[in-house]
Amino acid sequence: MKRVYLDNNATTKLDPIVKVKMQPFFEELYGNPNSLHQYGIEVRPYLNEAMGNMYDALNAPDADDILITSCATESNNTVLKGVFFKHILKNPTKNHIIASAVEHPSVLETLHFLEENGAEITFVDVDAYGYVSAERIAAAITDKTILISMMWANNETGMIFPVAEVAQIAKERGILFHTDAVQAIGKVKVDLTATPIDYLTFSAHKFHGPKGIGGLYVKKGSELPNLLHGGEQMGGKRAGTLNVAYIIGMGLAMKQSVGHLEKMNSDVRSLRDRLEDAISQIPDTFVVGDRERRTPNTILISLRGIEGESMLWDLNRAGIAASTGSACASESLEANPVMSAIGQDPELAHTAIRLSLSRFTTADEIDYVIDVFVKAAERLRSISSTYAYTNEVG
Amino acid sequence: MKRVYLDNNATTKLDPIVKVKMQPFFEELYGNPNSLHQYGIEVRPYLNEAMGNMYDALNAPDADDILITSCATESNNTVLKGVFFKHILKNPTKNHIIASAVEHPSVLETLHFLEENGAEITFVDVDAYGYVSAERIAAAITDKTILISMMWANNETGMIFPVAEVAQIAKERGILFHTDAVQAIGKVKVDLTATPIDYLTFSAHKFHGPKGIGGLYVKKGSELPNLLHGGEQMGGKRAGTLNVAYIIGMGLAMKQSVGHLEKMNSDVRSLRDRLEDAISQIPDTFVVGDRERRTPNTILISLRGIEGESMLWDLNRAGIAASTGSACASESLEANPVMSAIGQDPELAHTAIRLSLSRFTTADEIDYVIDVFVKAAERLRSISSTYAYTNEVG
Ligand SMILES: Cc1ncc(COP(=O)(O)O)c(C=O)c1O
Ligand SMILES: Cc1ncc(COP(=O)(O)O)c(C=O)c1O
Repeated sequence: MKRVYLDNNATTKLDPIVKVKMQPFFEELYGNPNSLHQYGIEVRPYLNEAMGNMYDALNAPDADDILITSCATESNNTVLKGVFFKHILKNPTKNHIIASAVEHPSVLETLHFLEENGAEITFVDVDAYGYVSAERIAAAITDKTILISMMWANNETGMIFPVAEVAQIAKERGILFHTDAVQAIGKVKVDLTATPIDYLTFSAHKFHGPKGIGGLYVKKGSELPNLLHGGEQMGGKRAGTLNVAYIIGMGLAMKQSVGHLEKMNSDVRSLRDRLEDAISQIPDTFVVGDRERRTPNTILISLRGIEGESMLWDLNRAGIAASTGSACASESLEANPVMSAIGQDPELAHTAIRLSLSRFTTADEIDYVIDVFVKAAERLRSISSTYAYTNEVG
Repeated sequence: MKRVYLDNNATTKLDPIVKVKMQPFFEELYGNPNSLHQYGIEVRPYLNEAMGNMYDALNAPDADDILITSCATESNNTVLKGVFFKHILKNPTKNHIIASAVEHPSVLETLHFLEENGAEITFVDVDAYGYVSAERIAAAITDKTILISMMWANNETGMIFPVAEVAQIAKERGILFHTDAVQAIGKVKVDLTATPIDYLTFSAHKFHGPKGIGGLYVKKGSELPNLLHGGEQMGGKRAGTLNVAYIIGMGLAMKQSVGHLEKMNSDVRSLRDRLEDAISQIPDTFVVGDRERRTPNTILISLRGIEGESMLWDLNRAGIAASTGSACASESLEANPVMSAIGQDPELAHTAIRLSLSRFTTADEIDYVIDVFVKAAERLRSISSTYAYTNEVG
């Protein structure tokens, strides 16, 4: 059966050259890089190369830290709980955190937890495009605000948020700024020298690196207490024996991904646009967010009268992987959270389907998906009670 | 050059069959198991098998949780910070934690951090064997004690601590009990049905699994707030996209390791004893801890007048990997912490060398190490000012 993977915002396939690069570290190069003997020493140049790849790809100043974590979830928890321990627990007059209402659960749930423990949180709503403006964020600032956490690009819609503007505002107001850039790396230009960001989160498996490794950029001067206390790894800032193979894999994957930024914004973007043009011809569809402000690989489309899960299953039967647009909660049949956040009626929020491409997606695959998708929409509408009903009364 | 790896308490080589088992998950089986489509569904049986391996190997009741973490450091931080948030922050009359003085830095440093934030900690000293008795632990209990954290086996000496006894005492006194079993898995029998343990920590790379994946057993009823808040993974108890390849690798590695428990306690033990017998013939040496109470693979030996680092380098030049016995701090030339804890004079604490075998260690390798070690000791003593001095005045 033909198989097409269009769920790249959930996870991506490993870049084949990354796989090759990691192999020796599952074989003879198994030393702990913190060891003083040859087995430890011999892996260090590879680690240094990988770290160098990441500093280069993000244009991060040498003085700043890139801490390796086990995932973006860990990075986000490190920032939010670090701010809690360093600032909020010590000084309740600075206990206010601002975040967009459409952050990933690893930000939202952590903030809910901190709220129970004394933090004050403002979740800033998005507009009908799924966009949050710098003005809305700025309007939420109070004297008590210690941190703003706003993602670079949204995982459901691909909408790119005004990071440079908000970073600047935060800097001027003496507020810390964190951005979850998981969906941005390899899709938009991320330049940590040009943009005054205190903390930036990334995760390798979103850019064709392995699953279970991520990173946290920390600007010099904005250090936080560890989420993982222990040994001397990462200059004592993130303890735990280094996942040598994956760090090396992540370094190369990021280099490759950022190296393909142009391809992403030309070839992949046109494939995405072709797919979007075709499927939005289907009547009574609604695509969230204007194309120009979205990452080049993402479509969140809603088809009135068709449950997202039903569409998912029709696509799946044809070998196509998509998502109902809530990857992390996808085992539960909930309404798409961004659709709810932009104020869609619950019925439409249940009809969302997310299609997310990668640089490995081909034109053939897109043609095949268009064909399957259009037919599935017809089939599902023909048996949909709600759609017939809407049409009859509409 | 001949190479012999005797630093298995720091990290181990990957079991070759584990490597093979992980491969497909770096290739076509790259789906996110939380996804609803085929790419996600098809990896789930492998994950279930791996989890089953771990429940079996530890004889853990089905009702209890085994949470997958990124390392033992994360597991230890999850327990200690979880207790802090759930109990200590809410109720300062229950803010006391007891730990042995020779826990791993991931316990010690976390406890120091919690101490700065309102917890009271008692570190219980070890005796001259590096052993901590159940009586000493019990004597530290107060009305405020909420948790006892005592490792199953020590990483430096291999000394096995009285886990069953302390677990029983904790249970009777209504105190939570955590054990860091990183150095115990595959070396001593760990049975979570027989022993009333609330939390147990492990790390795959100590039993021939990959580096950067670990676990935390949590008894039903002793749940704690997440260290990593976010998505629905692990029943919502540890968020972050699953590291599918490594979980599958860890499951098989643990099965293999626990399956080789007997070999460890017969063949590996006799190799260790042979090595220990030979090198303790060298005059003025001191081995920490009685053999019978140690894990079968570990020797911590100190040679008066020889800096641990000098011995490390002589061994390294001959292709042998050992450790000065403080793996995590091995980049800094500190005294061995356990040697200090048992009350050795600082001079001797600097002379510690740890040799740790694995089930892949061969008799030939041990013969080679004995030969090199004895010669190195002679050479280093012949140029040692402190040893000559000691001998002249002694
Ligand atoms: C007893 C003990 N606990 C915890 C750890 C930490 O393991 P990891 O580095 O995998 O987090 C180690 C290994 O250094 C250890 O020996
Ligand atoms: C925007 C965003 N942040 C964070 C995460 C969490 O990444 P991970 O599961 O690797 O921790 C994801 C992926 O699900 C994401 O899309």
